Amino acid sequence: MNNKIKWLREKIRGLNMQGMIISNPINVKYLTGIEAEGVLLITRKENHYITDARYLEEVQSTLTIDDEVIVHNIVDVNKYDNENFFSFCENVGFEENYISYAQYKDYMQKYKANNLEETENIIEKQRMIKDEHEIELLKKACEITDNCFSHLLQYIKVGMTEKQIAYEIERYFLKNGADGLAFDTIVATGKNSSKPHSKATEKKIELGDTILIDFGGKYKGYCSDMTRTIYAGFLPEKVKKVYNLVLKNQLQTEKELKEGANIRIIAKNVDNDFKLNGHSLIHALGHGIGLDIHELPIVSTKIDQNLKENMVITNEPGIYIPEEFGVRIEDTVLITKSGCINLTKSDKNYIVVDKVKQ
Amino acid sequence: MNNKIKWLREKIRGLNMQGMIISNPINVKYLTGIEAEGVLLITRKENHYITDARYLEEVQSTLTIDDEVIVHNIVDVNKYDNENFFSFCENVGFEENYISYAQYKDYMQKYKANNLEETENIIEKQRMIKDEHEIELLKKACEITDNCFSHLLQYIKVGMTEKQIAYEIERYFLKNGADGLAFDTIVATGKNSSKPHSKATEKKIELGDTILIDFGGKYKGYCSDMTRTIYAGFLPEKVKKVYNLVLKNQLQTEKELKEGANIRIIAKNVDNDFKLNGHSLIHALGHGIGLDIHELPIVSTKIDQNLKENMVITNEPGIYIPEEFGVRIEDTVLITKSGCINLTKSDKNYIVVDKVKQ
Repeated sequence: MNNKIKWLREKIRGLNMQGMIISNPINVKYLTGIEAEGVLLITRKENHYITDARYLEEVQSTLTIDDEVIVHNIVDVNKYDNENFFSFCENVGFEENYISYAQYKDYMQKYKANNLEETENIIEKQRMIKDEHEIELLKKACEITDNCFSHLLQYIKVGMTEKQIAYEIERYFLKNGADGLAFDTIVATGKNSSKPHSKATEKKIELGDTILIDFGGKYKGYCSDMTRTIYAGFLPEKVKKVYNLVLKNQLQTEKELKEGANIRIIAKNVDNDFKLNGHSLIHALGHGIGLDIHELPIVSTKIDQNLKENMVITNEPGIYIPEEFGVRIEDTVLITKSGCINLTKSDKNYIVVDKVKQ
Repeated sequence: MNNKIKWLREKIRGLNMQGMIISNPINVKYLTGIEAEGVLLITRKENHYITDARYLEEVQSTLTIDDEVIVHNIVDVNKYDNENFFSFCENVGFEENYISYAQYKDYMQKYKANNLEETENIIEKQRMIKDEHEIELLKKACEITDNCFSHLLQYIKVGMTEKQIAYEIERYFLKNGADGLAFDTIVATGKNSSKPHSKATEKKIELGDTILIDFGGKYKGYCSDMTRTIYAGFLPEKVKKVYNLVLKNQLQTEKELKEGANIRIIAKNVDNDFKLNGHSLIHALGHGIGLDIHELPIVSTKIDQNLKENMVITNEPGIYIPEEFGVRIEDTVLITKSGCINLTKSDKNYIVVDKVKQ
């Protein structure tokens, strides 16, 4: 059995469960590599994956003997098979945050376990700590992202639309080995950059505009996430002060991130420094990243939790001046025993593209 | 109170419920026009919408006095407010297919209703029948889609990539008054068209390629959905026969769609004719469409249900020859007492773009 399934089996045994139903496809991918629609059943002695005809071939080619997963076409699984999966099981775990109430009732009726037990995100919590192979894939996703950014610095010109830049980013990722985008690219220029979650619109870039680009790709399922705020033609003076404040805090956070550091304190430090300067941190300072773009841990002033080695998180302070402009600078970083390593490595000093010739 | 909320109040009264918790944002939009994150509570005498600071302003500007919805910022709603919403209610409805088991438990604990009762998609079922205003918006979404297709016929050339065409479609919708895309555009060319759910890739269009385009936009929240299969340079002979078989069945279905017609029989007719010709209908013949791209009813051989006036559904037979090519032709149609009206009206005879000069 592969290491991740072995880990899960030990974990649920410790929780006095004799099996678990895994319905969240990202958790299934984490445990088995499978990318499909279906359900993974960890029974007393076996692992079963139930899917439909569309996915059978691909699922079989993904699995190795080491995974020890028996694959079923759902049309071949009858009432008695379902009842047998968890026969004589007292407690069977399920994902209470993922499945609907109606699915819960369906599982209760179908699998005949004595008790379906909530598992409180055990797999999501384990996914916080990345193994060597996962770190390699995350590094690769970040490397493509850095290269894409270098390309953008040459590509972006005054007069282009936000959408045009977003399309170019997607094109670049697909052309350079990524699976695709990790999320809808944000290209927010001028006033649009003052809204933290603006998407890309048909607005054209004007001289003096802020260009906030928040983007990332997926490589073999693993995500990258980076934001850089750059300027079209020239950098207005009033913006420079805010830029420097955000950058100072991003670099300070970088110094503080390491195993054992407390998330709440690190985020508070940024919020405090922003407030001393008449601003505040209006969104989280960061988030875990892996197979999902947003994973545990949440890095915010509300989370009293210590960082651990091999967590991969984002470091993304931002300041937004309503109706004027915003600045956000974000890296994806790997937590180590002694500090953190930026997996995205693009220059963070302010950059002016399509510079005005003087 | 607006008509849709009035309808819901009568409906739940008939089901012996004294209130309902609506969590699905599309159902909230249907009932109130609100597009935000939050929960709508239909209590004995009042309607409450609980959201957060990000959405307050927009929610307030969407609602009219006629809606009679009281809006709350979630941070101002305390434990006692929650307990009061459904005090003395025996049965309160909830959306068992939408909320997670964990949310269900949270609602049970928070709202203190005696019993949370499953509502079996009552709102989704009502959404099947469109009112006059909804039909106007659907017509407009379809009109932009037709215009976009006319534009594409001039735009598409041999050598372009699938992605390039998909981007052009998105650009066209945004530029011509749509909210955006209704779903990820499918542009499947050559062999890619043999997979019904292919997306757009970096593949370049070659001479003689099939170009299957499945696309739609949203207009004020309402979706359109249309597929046309066209050809680059010329139409290969072997493809023409399949094209004509799909078109014949699409037109035949068009004749059969009307109030009272049975979904299963209509879908069976297509499947039978395909089988007589050595093919089969491997996906549904269509689906309801409205605020969601896929709504009730499902139009397939498994659904024994009669159509009703003012349903809006798609009519989309397709044939796929593995590793070779696919043909799908799809319209969005309005069901009437005596027949159906195509809301998408683009030409369905085969069209050759970037024609080879002879």
